[in-house]
Amino acid sequence: MPNGSPSHIVKSYEEDLKRLREMIARMGGLAERQVADAADALIRRDNKLAAEVVARDKLLDDMEREVEQFCVRLLALRQPMAQDLRLIIACMKISQDLERIGDYARNGAKRAIVVSQQPLLGSLNGFERMAELVQENLKGAIDALVEEDHAQADAVWANDEPIDGIYNGIFREMLTFMMEDPRNITAATHLLFIAKNMERIGDHATNIAERVHFAVLGTPLTEERPKADVSTSAVVQPPA
Amino acid sequence: MPNGSPSHIVKSYEEDLKRLREMIARMGGLAERQVADAADALIRRDNKLAAEVVARDKLLDDMEREVEQFCVRLLALRQPMAQDLRLIIACMKISQDLERIGDYARNGAKRAIVVSQQPLLGSLNGFERMAELVQENLKGAIDALVEEDHAQADAVWANDEPIDGIYNGIFREMLTFMMEDPRNITAATHLLFIAKNMERIGDHATNIAERVHFAVLGTPLTEERPKADVSTSAVVQPPA
Repeated sequence: MPNGSPSHIVKSYEEDLKRLREMIARMGGLAERQVADAADALIRRDNKLAAEVVARDKLLDDMEREVEQFCVRLLALRQPMAQDLRLIIACMKISQDLERIGDYARNGAKRAIVVSQQPLLGSLNGFERMAELVQENLKGAIDALVEEDHAQADAVWANDEPIDGIYNGIFREMLTFMMEDPRNITAATHLLFIAKNMERIGDHATNIAERVHFAVLGTPLTEERPKADVSTSAVVQPPA
Repeated sequence: MPNGSPSHIVKSYEEDLKRLREMIARMGGLAERQVADAADALIRRDNKLAAEVVARDKLLDDMEREVEQFCVRLLALRQPMAQDLRLIIACMKISQDLERIGDYARNGAKRAIVVSQQPLLGSLNGFERMAELVQENLKGAIDALVEEDHAQADAVWANDEPIDGIYNGIFREMLTFMMEDPRNITAATHLLFIAKNMERIGDHATNIAERVHFAVLGTPLTEERPKADVSTSAVVQPPA
């Protein structure tokens, strides 16, 4: 903050930073809702809800642009230093993560519409659980930003492993469905991509947590993150 | 740039901006190479090269951090305005795109190792062509930044459609391989994800082009982008 500023300028600057955090919180809330609704649409075969998720994605694109514009204005007018500068940059990058999360949710919702017209494959319990965990991490990461709570950010960062575990299970399950009956292949392929999208949303929540940690403390979270997605090397054999 | 600065400060400021563009150019060059090598490793079944791509990805992570640190320093010390400010912010966001492109290339390289141990599926010509187009767009977008050439950025932005077209073809081809023989399912699934990764790399190249356009002109590329990925709604029938 510039030295010697009159107190009303200082106050309005603090309000600007508060407003920025609120913009990200609102954007995070919408991203969470998109993830929840995309999963619901899939599980309840609700194509109306899926279409709503697709239509609503534009809002996240607009919000990313608003965050960027607001940050540019803050940088130009306030010339922030140290922690404030880190916060503003983190918010810009987080808005990029949230926009990307929205893309994954929209893509999942589109695929849910196709899946709803195909034979039912299993219970989709794994998808429900995965969506819950991903939303939890996303919420935790955004709360950590709003409350400038690096310990909460670290907790989210360490909590990605169970999501990867469920994803690996779904990967094998879907390949098995495909091998059992070729009529399952279209649905299983789209379900695989939906699961992968959720896993990537989880990765973005982890990215956000890393950015919050850095914004609050000024030091990166460098430790190697526990990562349990082994599906890139998975081989599944057809039944003999 | 602050008014009334002595000319050596102005000069060093311009050198800083030049250095920033060079950092992004170097990062873009590495990202291109990762995409090219991941595709080569797949097509030539070269697992040594695939392992190199995986190992090299860390460099892109480090470069993203360096770009961010350099930008923070520029923002704090130089208090840039207008076009310079937009350039610095665009570079930060572009480094995030390039880091993500690296993740996709690494993921593709890991899957290429699995695919190399599975039965051969078709010619993989589509993958080769897709990788070429993606690299071309990525190079075009980075060149547009370095040369501050918004017309080149616009050309890249409009050039994503052929990539989506090839991806749609691969999607249908892989589902057909799966339906023909369950022993193809593991390879075809990994190939599907590799193709999707390349398609996403193409999307990031388009994002970079949008950011360059905005950085140079100060107005967003708002026109709806031609988008031809219809695979999210694709249904493929097993042979009767």
